Amino acid sequence: MKNMAVIICILTSFVGGGTAISVEVPISEASAECIDCHSATHPGIVNDWQNSRHAKITPKEAMAVEGVARKVSSKTVPENLQNVVVGCAECHTLRPKAHADTFDHNENNIHVVVSPDDCKTCHATERQQYSKNIMAHAYGNLADNKLYQKLEHSILAETKYKNGKINLKPANDATKSETCYYCHGTKLELKGYETRDTEAAGELEFPIIKGWPNQGVGRINLDGSMGSCSACHTRHAFSIEMARKPYTCKECHVGPDVPAFKVYAASKHGNIFSAMNSSWNFKAVPWTVGKDFTAPTCATCHVSLLVNTEEEVVVERTHQMNNRLPWRILGLIYAHAHPQKPNTSIIRNKDGLPLPTDFSGGFATQYLIDKKEMEGRRQTMQAVCLNCHDSSWVSGHWKRFKNTIRETNAKTLTATQIMEDIWQHGWADKKDSFYNEAIERKWSDTWLFYANTIRFASAMGSGGDYGVFSDGRYQLSKSLMELNDWLDLRKQLESASKK
Amino acid sequence: MKNMAVIICILTSFVGGGTAISVEVPISEASAECIDCHSATHPGIVNDWQNSRHAKITPKEAMAVEGVARKVSSKTVPENLQNVVVGCAECHTLRPKAHADTFDHNENNIHVVVSPDDCKTCHATERQQYSKNIMAHAYGNLADNKLYQKLEHSILAETKYKNGKINLKPANDATKSETCYYCHGTKLELKGYETRDTEAAGELEFPIIKGWPNQGVGRINLDGSMGSCSACHTRHAFSIEMARKPYTCKECHVGPDVPAFKVYAASKHGNIFSAMNSSWNFKAVPWTVGKDFTAPTCATCHVSLLVNTEEEVVVERTHQMNNRLPWRILGLIYAHAHPQKPNTSIIRNKDGLPLPTDFSGGFATQYLIDKKEMEGRRQTMQAVCLNCHDSSWVSGHWKRFKNTIRETNAKTLTATQIMEDIWQHGWADKKDSFYNEAIERKWSDTWLFYANTIRFASAMGSGGDYGVFSDGRYQLSKSLMELNDWLDLRKQLESASKK
Amino acid sequence: MKNMAVIICILTSFVGGGTAISVEVPISEASAECIDCHSATHPGIVNDWQNSRHAKITPKEAMAVEGVARKVSSKTVPENLQNVVVGCAECHTLRPKAHADTFDHNENNIHVVVSPDDCKTCHATERQQYSKNIMAHAYGNLADNKLYQKLEHSILAETKYKNGKINLKPANDATKSETCYYCHGTKLELKGYETRDTEAAGELEFPIIKGWPNQGVGRINLDGSMGSCSACHTRHAFSIEMARKPYTCKECHVGPDVPAFKVYAASKHGNIFSAMNSSWNFKAVPWTVGKDFTAPTCATCHVSLLVNTEEEVVVERTHQMNNRLPWRILGLIYAHAHPQKPNTSIIRNKDGLPLPTDFSGGFATQYLIDKKEMEGRRQTMQAVCLNCHDSSWVSGHWKRFKNTIRETNAKTLTATQIMEDIWQHGWADKKDSFYNEAIERKWSDTWLFYANTIRFASAMGSGGDYGVFSDGRYQLSKSLMELNDWLDLRKQLESASKK
Repeated sequence: MKNMAVIICILTSFVGGGTAISVEVPISEASAECIDCHSATHPGIVNDWQNSRHAKITPKEAMAVEGVARKVSSKTVPENLQNVVVGCAECHTLRPKAHADTFDHNENNIHVVVSPDDCKTCHATERQQYSKNIMAHAYGNLADNKLYQKLEHSILAETKYKNGKINLKPANDATKSETCYYCHGTKLELKGYETRDTEAAGELEFPIIKGWPNQGVGRINLDGSMGSCSACHTRHAFSIEMARKPYTCKECHVGPDVPAFKVYAASKHGNIFSAMNSSWNFKAVPWTVGKDFTAPTCATCHVSLLVNTEEEVVVERTHQMNNRLPWRILGLIYAHAHPQKPNTSIIRNKDGLPLPTDFSGGFATQYLIDKKEMEGRRQTMQAVCLNCHDSSWVSGHWKRFKNTIRETNAKTLTATQIMEDIWQHGWADKKDSFYNEAIERKWSDTWLFYANTIRFASAMGSGGDYGVFSDGRYQLSKSLMELNDWLDLRKQLESASKK
Repeated sequence: MKNMAVIICILTSFVGGGTAISVEVPISEASAECIDCHSATHPGIVNDWQNSRHAKITPKEAMAVEGVARKVSSKTVPENLQNVVVGCAECHTLRPKAHADTFDHNENNIHVVVSPDDCKTCHATERQQYSKNIMAHAYGNLADNKLYQKLEHSILAETKYKNGKINLKPANDATKSETCYYCHGTKLELKGYETRDTEAAGELEFPIIKGWPNQGVGRINLDGSMGSCSACHTRHAFSIEMARKPYTCKECHVGPDVPAFKVYAASKHGNIFSAMNSSWNFKAVPWTVGKDFTAPTCATCHVSLLVNTEEEVVVERTHQMNNRLPWRILGLIYAHAHPQKPNTSIIRNKDGLPLPTDFSGGFATQYLIDKKEMEGRRQTMQAVCLNCHDSSWVSGHWKRFKNTIRETNAKTLTATQIMEDIWQHGWADKKDSFYNEAIERKWSDTWLFYANTIRFASAMGSGGDYGVFSDGRYQLSKSLMELNDWLDLRKQLESASKK
Repeated sequence: MKNMAVIICILTSFVGGGTAISVEVPISEASAECIDCHSATHPGIVNDWQNSRHAKITPKEAMAVEGVARKVSSKTVPENLQNVVVGCAECHTLRPKAHADTFDHNENNIHVVVSPDDCKTCHATERQQYSKNIMAHAYGNLADNKLYQKLEHSILAETKYKNGKINLKPANDATKSETCYYCHGTKLELKGYETRDTEAAGELEFPIIKGWPNQGVGRINLDGSMGSCSACHTRHAFSIEMARKPYTCKECHVGPDVPAFKVYAASKHGNIFSAMNSSWNFKAVPWTVGKDFTAPTCATCHVSLLVNTEEEVVVERTHQMNNRLPWRILGLIYAHAHPQKPNTSIIRNKDGLPLPTDFSGGFATQYLIDKKEMEGRRQTMQAVCLNCHDSSWVSGHWKRFKNTIRETNAKTLTATQIMEDIWQHGWADKKDSFYNEAIERKWSDTWLFYANTIRFASAMGSGGDYGVFSDGRYQLSKSLMELNDWLDLRKQLESASKK
């Protein structure tokens, strides 16, 4: 990268009704050079950046902010970055030797994929928190778990039908990248270089990156780091506003396996958000309950630093995401205490399987947080609730939620016991995979879709249709009946065959 | 409660961009005392209220408004309430002897749960209308109907699997409160008192209320009244804007059993709302067609007082909800004329069952509104339509809707006849319950989910995907085939067994 | 129609907060006469129009605009229309002899249904493009295809159950009009006249139009033209803003058969739209990437004229809709190259069936666009993508999409081969219809709902839940297992019967 001599640019940004505001900002010479070409070839990227906070304030100015309003958490920022705004070159030329995809681009050492380890230059605390986030390990937590791999295989595999049998062939990387690993993150790998004929600058050489594009939460980057800040802080706006709105979380949390957005949108909180959010302030740091917003979004409860109207801190910011959550309510046969460590592939239940519970619902306690930690997390979460609800409301809500965890676990136990019956009769094969026969999928529906939807409705909405008729208890109870009906039919058939 | 001596407070409310507007309002001494502590302990509640109309205008000022713009419908309001804004104490200390949960709170007689009978102090007409609303009776309509109780039991019951059989144990109150009764409303009961150590004021005593929290439409309150105004006018903003937007209705009307919001959002009306509502006026009373909004929301057609641009009344406000509706299109095997009375648990069909139709589709006419009443309701509804549609459009729409009622009733009759065949063969047991076997649930899907979705799509959207491929006729016709397929398989099995 | 003498009216329109802006506009005498009565009888219609661009600018002024900002594409507009705004009479009295529904209304020759051939008076290019749009032929493409008619029949038919058999009777026009033809468009026919007693003007005569109301994209109009501009440009606002927002497309593209809106709303693009669109400019023509919007809506990629910030054209406007699309990914057993002609009912596969592929997945190539045309369309689409994404991102995305087409086609081939096995065994009847038995519907689910949802998730979202757990590969693979399970059970039953 060339030198970072500061040049003053007039940045014109268009807001709302089309009013133009011009401000003078110091842009590095290197970034100015990027913008020179890219403002024409990639106007979407350049404009997004121009409207971002990164284009409007230098790290030095940002570091001068004191107390809870401060956004730059790093105690020090390299001298050469302090007095220019955070432009293209500032991120895409950072730590060139660390990135396998660094390449020469008009005499600059550019890397395509900016990683959390780049972002930590200014946002050290968030990066450190995020590394403890189970999401940071989302790639390995799926790819390194043999049982999850079997489920993945049964869903993604290519199929061929021959002699009355469906044969499966492992899915290729293209399929994997746009399915499970779209959200979990792909593993990026440098595969070589290619020359492309560009309109702006003729022939140029670029790296070929396997797994690209991707912005999954647990992406394995080309510097070895895990995660992608742009999963939520969409490039190149890096918008706190967008990350605080529930649509960002919806990208990965909307299907029947994780119906958080659907449940939220139909809850009282979601109603208030939908009806009133156009008058809220999504940019304020810290975020003041009652003043900046009047109902929580996903970020309010799970991520943001909140203060009350007397400027007292209600909860600290976290990018660990699950540290206000005692229970993990999705994805597995039974709800259970959260894993202690973000790498869940190391967990073994009493039968040696990589699962946080056994098939009878027992916890693999040594890998899970203990009651004290659960209690602390509950209290942190409830500190948020208590700004708008009195303690009888909050404790009443929580009692029902815990009841629902117990009750849904009992129902998936019933489902599992019927399934065990079927496996023992030999009418389905447990050994090869738990998920590759029609009746096994009816069983996995019960916990992967219905029990978890019920729990989300309980946790986030205090009830409502997603707990009853919309992938809720109606569907869960029906599935139990259907499992039994299927088993009963095989019994009848067996008895008919014996006659 | 202490005296109500007026003190003048400066109320600062933050709007939109963060601009602060300060106004002087007379707040009662008692409410000022509440705010003293609660603005710190419950900033969300206090801020919501400060931004509400209740915090900005006294009943006396509100009563001075003449004609259709008037919001306070009571002819008289107690003297002591007239000259202070409607603050905490004004509602939470009203009628202390009527409320079982009244308790001493810093020398004030406070009750936790404000009821419609409190609200009627100023809003008498709305309260009176709402008492005729079928929603006001939503608790008893479910809890006191033996057939509905069987459906509820089959959905909510706890399960245990033993010897190839699923055993059911009645669901507990916690489960009931966050499922059916989340929307229908719980029955609140005072269970005693508990002492809690509060941060602000040390040890205090509070009532323990069974069924709390809840804001269901038919909640049985601690003064014996039925309903919860905050179901739609969310506490403590009491916002007409929010109640007029469809997200409020969505809270209970989004699942496949009552897919009103989903159908609306995909309709032409919903499209216009979604695209254009940011420029509409949701606060105006009366609400002027064409000027304040250009497409209806739920409230427009079912609740609001509407005027045209010449200030003529198009329809009167109603909180009865169904008095613009001739047909009840959901929840039961067949669409039918609306019940005469809000208490539907008294209805008996010709077979003595608490249903508005018999299993062959015949109406329990003596409990349902007659043709003249249906005709009147149709006309009231169409008075709304005719502001934007000519009469050929409106009558064309209505003819299709009536055809759809007839046609979907015929299809659920087919489903019921197949089910009767199955019951008669003894392959399912009609006597114990209609809903606790897999095949019975396939039958209930046909009318509880598909026939009603089709009718909503017809009524609210004039058609579209929810009438065809999204829980519509594709799914309904498929279910008929599946019922038949199931029956056919049992016949084959029986015949195989006999050989 | 009476003369068109211009009269100057003061048009008061209410915007946003209720501010009134008064402007003088020349309204024709005829339109002024319409407004006289209709502003009271149809305030919704008149107000919508008053807020529209049609009410604010004359064709002459609109034609004076040069270059890409021009909205009137016709080179000439009749003299008598040039100097008045586009009011009621200007459209509803155009070409009176061409319209079968023209009738005398207060001495004006009015027609109810305004058609694309009326709109082309000013918007000739758009009308011409739209005539090549497959949507323009949506009526005939469904009504004139014998195989589609069988699917339609199996879904819509009225049912009667007798002797263990479901009998089907063809659906009537009312049902058809609010189902398939709600979106596809009805065939309008003049059925006579009726006298109605109107409040404003006593007895008046009006035409009776079969198939009315309707605003489907392929409506057959009373002047013989095909299509309905108001399908997207909702009457009488004719709003470009509304057509550019995704809610308009949602009206027909939301169900599991065409889940475009659902997939979009959960995509990164949809997230950005939902979070940020309140600050975008949806009215600007041309539409500038990065300045007017920062993420695409449906219209951006498929319809709109786009320029970059240097005012260079990125893509030309099109109303053909599919001319940026090489592949057709929905509605049929296999994804395939787009049909050459908008009339798809003429297509025949190698077996003589009106399908673009045969049952083994082979293309009816002579009716489909060739590779060169596909390549051109891909490039046009990617010209949009490249404003915000570099070419490695875009080509990476595209490779995955093509992989998904291949892979999903292979899976629906597996489903079809199992189904063929079932048909050959005689356990379902292929000859009468492919869709009227339970197991056939399980087969049609695989391609009508799941394979296409997966492709939409790939094309529009680069992946995500709609490709996996929400009508995606989980459901597709499960359906293959269930087809096999059903077949296997029949084999067992047959074997049991033979003993």
